[in-house]
Amino acid sequence: MTEFAAVDVIRAKRDGHRLSDAQIDWVVDAYTRGVVADEQMSALAMAILLRGMEAGEIARWTAAMIASGERLDLSTVTRPTADKHSTGGVGDKITLPLTPLVAACGAAVPQLSGRGLGHTGGTLDKLESIPGWRASLANDEFKRQLDDVGAVICAAGEGLAPADRKLYALRDVTGTVEAIPLIASSIMSKKIAEGTGALVLDVKVGSGAFMKDLTAARELAATMVQLGKDSGVTTIALLTDMNTPLGLAVGNAVEVAESVEVLAGGGPADVVELTLALAREMLAAAGLDADPAQVLASGAAMDTWRRMIRAQGGDPNAPLPVARETEVVRAAADGVVTAVDAYGIGVAAWRLGAGRARKEDPVSFGAGVVLKVKPGDPVRAGDALFELRTDDPARLAPARETAAQAVTVGDAPPALTQLVLDRIA
Amino acid sequence: MTEFAAVDVIRAKRDGHRLSDAQIDWVVDAYTRGVVADEQMSALAMAILLRGMEAGEIARWTAAMIASGERLDLSTVTRPTADKHSTGGVGDKITLPLTPLVAACGAAVPQLSGRGLGHTGGTLDKLESIPGWRASLANDEFKRQLDDVGAVICAAGEGLAPADRKLYALRDVTGTVEAIPLIASSIMSKKIAEGTGALVLDVKVGSGAFMKDLTAARELAATMVQLGKDSGVTTIALLTDMNTPLGLAVGNAVEVAESVEVLAGGGPADVVELTLALAREMLAAAGLDADPAQVLASGAAMDTWRRMIRAQGGDPNAPLPVARETEVVRAAADGVVTAVDAYGIGVAAWRLGAGRARKEDPVSFGAGVVLKVKPGDPVRAGDALFELRTDDPARLAPARETAAQAVTVGDAPPALTQLVLDRIA
Repeated sequence: MTEFAAVDVIRAKRDGHRLSDAQIDWVVDAYTRGVVADEQMSALAMAILLRGMEAGEIARWTAAMIASGERLDLSTVTRPTADKHSTGGVGDKITLPLTPLVAACGAAVPQLSGRGLGHTGGTLDKLESIPGWRASLANDEFKRQLDDVGAVICAAGEGLAPADRKLYALRDVTGTVEAIPLIASSIMSKKIAEGTGALVLDVKVGSGAFMKDLTAARELAATMVQLGKDSGVTTIALLTDMNTPLGLAVGNAVEVAESVEVLAGGGPADVVELTLALAREMLAAAGLDADPAQVLASGAAMDTWRRMIRAQGGDPNAPLPVARETEVVRAAADGVVTAVDAYGIGVAAWRLGAGRARKEDPVSFGAGVVLKVKPGDPVRAGDALFELRTDDPARLAPARETAAQAVTVGDAPPALTQLVLDRIA
Repeated sequence: MTEFAAVDVIRAKRDGHRLSDAQIDWVVDAYTRGVVADEQMSALAMAILLRGMEAGEIARWTAAMIASGERLDLSTVTRPTADKHSTGGVGDKITLPLTPLVAACGAAVPQLSGRGLGHTGGTLDKLESIPGWRASLANDEFKRQLDDVGAVICAAGEGLAPADRKLYALRDVTGTVEAIPLIASSIMSKKIAEGTGALVLDVKVGSGAFMKDLTAARELAATMVQLGKDSGVTTIALLTDMNTPLGLAVGNAVEVAESVEVLAGGGPADVVELTLALAREMLAAAGLDADPAQVLASGAAMDTWRRMIRAQGGDPNAPLPVARETEVVRAAADGVVTAVDAYGIGVAAWRLGAGRARKEDPVSFGAGVVLKVKPGDPVRAGDALFELRTDDPARLAPARETAAQAVTVGDAPPALTQLVLDRIA
């Protein structure tokens, strides 16, 4: 590998030049090995954020991140593989019903997930509220479960894209998270290294999402779809609304319970709608001809869910953790719910203990917000608007204030909004 | 002091906002204390480089850097104080004759200097070629010498602007040196903390300078002049040419020898011209009415030089170090010297051992390039163009090649150039 001086690579991007393939290969490898220092990579990340990268640079950067670690080989898995990645939202528990549903339709779903940081929850935190369930699987356990059950949700191993692990932690503390080339390469390096054959991206847009703006979200989606295709992964993206939380439950155990309702044939309409929309895309991308609505109604997805939870040590029949304190907040006057702001509800759930401020913090499984209304619902004075749940009563007051500002009641119903805003393939 | 999250300060600048006074005070102080990490400061430095800073931000940043350390009080010095700072060039030994000359005209010159890194030499390295001379003075020695002799050239103490010391080292390895707000605040924080009453800036422009471009140099000069004025320091800047080395000698001992020639009433015309131009500005800024040309001719500046060197343990009569190897490079054909490129000569002298690659490297006192011609000089085949001097014969070949490319001989004389390009007050 050609050697460079880190300062020359930084200066090239700083001055708006395209980094060469050799420069990218070197800087990602040298950073992983600790030859390029954190303070050099953070300066480069800021230069990338402000100067941008061409498509070819992003592809090479992604390839270099994949090359920094191992690549799973799922070729021995007999069923077609399909995975989903969401850029993160409030109440976004879709992975929980979706993974067993798509598996029950005939695919193998290798869902490597993360933990939550900030106001959006993490899939692993939610599942860990199920007594006995464990997130870490060895590579051979992972492949065996993928063959046997067809569905795995587990933590990504240390060996996948270690460059990304190191860079992500750095970006978090240096104000360089919001660079589309770095977001796209971070997500796609892990998904390509994981070895899935098909990938559906759920790019969230709105107050509760990382991307507030449809144009930027579309650019991110298009960048990721191209990266997937270039690596031989059939990739499509849905842009979906995240101004309002998904479903009624926002937290950990409360979201598991809502997911089980969906698997049982009930659950909030928006959660069902998005689960089915993503399942259809995954199945089509995997080349499978199945009707997920029918499979959901048949109870087969619930069966797969129970097998998936059991395979990872969890007891699907065990009662879920319940928070010690519950407080109901009610409408002050008659009217109609004009908005339930996803960001505010996410922050309130986080303040109640559902999320973590630093990555080493524990989460409270029972904590969260349970909404009693959605935008457009008529309410009368005294009707319940939402419930706050926490193990620590001192957390109620700040969460109440934030949640109360997020749920607004007025005279006129809000304009109708779409859940799926766009599709990029 | 108000506390901030480092990421919020970085994001504000990244997104093009003005940093508040409180944010600047906090981030500079927190970085000095190690609360803001190197990787956070380097991301901020890159954002400052690409987004810029308003005049008010630069002033506050400079004040925060001054506040990070001690401030010398020169109010007990009876003579008016005047200092000079050069942004660095090739063959730029002007501090050596200028300091005693201005002192001999009645001012006190508190010249805190640095060492060389890269292709430009450092004043302290040059003076250390004088046997016995020492660069480090305690604060009380410094003030006493300023009163007794009127001239001090010494190393800046550790206590002045420690934030700048730390930030400068970080910028060097993160591609963030070339940010005008950071260059201006770095220079001016040290000069203001040093306590001088008047300051003349020599902003170099051209191939051998840090600033290649007149527009950028003018912006830097204007920024620094304003910072000085805002702090009650009478400040003016000269923009001077650095496409050609100053004088004929480029190295350490060879530059001391050339400086002594100037003090003796001889020396190259350009060195004399710039020394007198800067002396006139310093004297005017200090409110002194003296003719430096007359004082130079009288021998009084040479007397002050000898007293200054002796006061710091040096022997002005001792022979200077001589390099072990000398090689003369001659013209291949008749013609006229069309250019002597400052950058190429600087790199050649550095390769011969006059400079250092890393800050812990020693320099060779005798090494360097001695020019025998200047642009416009007619030459005949076989005439000496320059001499290479080094202690290590292995260094001759690479230096010869670089220097030979820098000295070009052609048919037509080059256009006349000015040494002083502009004055900003």
